[in-house]
Amino acid sequence: MRAVDVIARKRDGGAIADGDLRTFVLGYARDEVADYQMAAFLMAGVLRGFTRGEAVALTGAMLDSGERLDLARLSGPTVDKHSTGGVGDGTTLVVAPLAAALGMQVVKLSGRGLGHTGGTLDKLDAIPGMRTELSGEELVAQVEAIGLAVCAQTADLVPADKAMYALRDVTATVQDVALIAASVMSKKLAGGAQAILLDVKAGSGAFMKDVESARELAELCVELGEAGGRATGALITDMSQPLAQAVGNASEVREAIAVLRGEQPGRFCELCVALAGHMAALAGLADDPEAGTARARAALADGDGLERFRAFVAAQGGDAAIVDDPDRLPGAPVSRDVVAGHAGALAQVDAEAIGRAAAAVGAGRQRKEDEIDLGVGVDVLVSIGDRVEPDGVVARVHARDDEAAAQAGEAVLAALSWSDALVEPPPLVHAVVGDRLAQT
Amino acid sequence: MRAVDVIARKRDGGAIADGDLRTFVLGYARDEVADYQMAAFLMAGVLRGFTRGEAVALTGAMLDSGERLDLARLSGPTVDKHSTGGVGDGTTLVVAPLAAALGMQVVKLSGRGLGHTGGTLDKLDAIPGMRTELSGEELVAQVEAIGLAVCAQTADLVPADKAMYALRDVTATVQDVALIAASVMSKKLAGGAQAILLDVKAGSGAFMKDVESARELAELCVELGEAGGRATGALITDMSQPLAQAVGNASEVREAIAVLRGEQPGRFCELCVALAGHMAALAGLADDPEAGTARARAALADGDGLERFRAFVAAQGGDAAIVDDPDRLPGAPVSRDVVAGHAGALAQVDAEAIGRAAAAVGAGRQRKEDEIDLGVGVDVLVSIGDRVEPDGVVARVHARDDEAAAQAGEAVLAALSWSDALVEPPPLVHAVVGDRLAQT
Repeated sequence: MRAVDVIARKRDGGAIADGDLRTFVLGYARDEVADYQMAAFLMAGVLRGFTRGEAVALTGAMLDSGERLDLARLSGPTVDKHSTGGVGDGTTLVVAPLAAALGMQVVKLSGRGLGHTGGTLDKLDAIPGMRTELSGEELVAQVEAIGLAVCAQTADLVPADKAMYALRDVTATVQDVALIAASVMSKKLAGGAQAILLDVKAGSGAFMKDVESARELAELCVELGEAGGRATGALITDMSQPLAQAVGNASEVREAIAVLRGEQPGRFCELCVALAGHMAALAGLADDPEAGTARARAALADGDGLERFRAFVAAQGGDAAIVDDPDRLPGAPVSRDVVAGHAGALAQVDAEAIGRAAAAVGAGRQRKEDEIDLGVGVDVLVSIGDRVEPDGVVARVHARDDEAAAQAGEAVLAALSWSDALVEPPPLVHAVVGDRLAQT
Repeated sequence: MRAVDVIARKRDGGAIADGDLRTFVLGYARDEVADYQMAAFLMAGVLRGFTRGEAVALTGAMLDSGERLDLARLSGPTVDKHSTGGVGDGTTLVVAPLAAALGMQVVKLSGRGLGHTGGTLDKLDAIPGMRTELSGEELVAQVEAIGLAVCAQTADLVPADKAMYALRDVTATVQDVALIAASVMSKKLAGGAQAILLDVKAGSGAFMKDVESARELAELCVELGEAGGRATGALITDMSQPLAQAVGNASEVREAIAVLRGEQPGRFCELCVALAGHMAALAGLADDPEAGTARARAALADGDGLERFRAFVAAQGGDAAIVDDPDRLPGAPVSRDVVAGHAGALAQVDAEAIGRAAAAVGAGRQRKEDEIDLGVGVDVLVSIGDRVEPDGVVARVHARDDEAAAQAGEAVLAALSWSDALVEPPPLVHAVVGDRLAQT
């Protein structure tokens, strides 16, 4: 089947045979199918939809467009987790050490981010000396020794996804559940872990604004993971407000350390424990998510998670002294408190607007070539349901100068909506998806 | 509005403001909007549809992407005609001289074709010495003197159409009535004539297989022409069988001369007369199409059309002696009669298959770089409704060698379906479209 015939078939709503879809995607990765043909195909797919079978074939072809990380050399069990992205979402920094403390091996391939803050790699850049380019040998040795590594994804993994992702961004074909799921899962499958936990965010700060669309994405991701032979599950978690207090790079590292030190309970801490616990269940290290979560909570309480984090920083060349003295991390010249100005209960947060405010002070990139300011950011100190008095401090802004701080402060206030009535806090986890995570 | 936002709006079925559509198309012509963005937009348009207003704006933007032919220097009235394409469709060679004989000025910009035979320019190549590259000065002088010129379209006219047409071909976005109409009419508007007659083909040998889809295209083309300030009308004509007997290059020129000499009445002749007559009505040279058609019939009968053709060939450097001695045109080494083999009435013709048979002997191109054999082709000597006896000659094949001739003969026979019953011939003209051509 010629490329134009594959496009025509999708245009007309017909089913595309696995082999044809595979030839099309692999042809694209080899530059035999042109960008404009893939763009027309993607638009036809967004408007006509993809079947489950097509999503599986698409994911497999994207996966086979490049190399896979071979984790068979590790003693295991290997586990990966992936967040679909949100504001103040630095869970990897806590979850990976906790998982390692529970006996899992976590190889986390991360990227640099576009948006409100950098990606996990940018956050690690805030740690003096930290290296994120590891050779295959280094990776294996480190994970065998301490149970975790976080490093840069190489261009050899899933080149088709890389090209399609860039294309979707400029052709208005981002918003399709099958394309999103295939992009996520082809990368996770290439990452090589035996078990995969997805943290699918829903709410004002997430790509999926409501739980129903998040559930659709989560279910498809789980199906694609299982079709790829991995133990896969998903949590649908709340992103109606920033997850952590800190939205920034160094400040998210600082908050992760505080959580690992047991000094900062709350929503962020609870989700990290839950994620590590569900990973343990998927990896066969706990009978069920509840038992896994209890073990994760214990690993946090007895400091095992913190020690894994310390070992991880040291293994990748970073300054491990930050664990005891977080002030060694980059800071900002100006820090400014943001005061509520009136009394009320926090009713709603435009989490995306908080993210934009953090990006505006320099914590995120608008374009690939932008430089991130690792020390700046926004801390939101109130959660939905919290009551404040007029002089209550609701946020803190860390910026380069007074003007940037003042602007960010106003933007943060504008993103918060207040109520005179009692406000119920949203659940942290909306749903658990996947047969393997069903409560017994 | 950014390009990606224009694409997103069409994807979501929203209306696109004229200015935004214009910026998008002109940006594409200037390489500021990428091929893949146009491809995604076109696919979204094919699936979501374009409004009439969007078709008008699209046509205007495509037109303004390049130069226009300035026919204001001509004394007028200037008239153009366009066929959407069919098999054995060499009407230009007869209609343009007849129109000139009626006092119209016809500047016909033509191309080389892909498909069963070449385009009009390829057919003219069959006339020894004929030039089809004319300068602006030559064009004006020739048309003022003899009323017609047929020459190659330059790349300066409607570059956006040229690029979009090539893109649509490889992205399965050909089949949209608004895109087809905008492509046709942007070129016709750039051609500069005050009046435009469209010959929209319907049937097995046409792009539009039924009268209803042909009518939709015709109505939109007329609307776009009128919106562009031109007197525009359309005939929906039958393409359920080849129009002329000859399907080839030299052979179509030969048949055109026979028609102009009054030696070959029939469907092809009748349609040419009708087209010229309707052009006269659009140009204001006849009170209505009926009066115009009567005048065209007279111009054919008294030899005025033939003399215009002779003058046209001479003016463009061709061997005018072909008019009296068509055997000077290229021929084929082998000519072979195709015999019916049984008795019956011709019931159906797969006109596209006839076209493919002609292309297979060398009359057409599969790819741009293919060379056309001007002397070969297929003549279909029977029309739907004709009765034949078993030894009746139904076609004649002109080929390079016996093998090619035998294959073409079989292909032609396979394209003809016979009936024992009486078969009614199809109408030549299915409908007339446009207020200006309404019968009084």
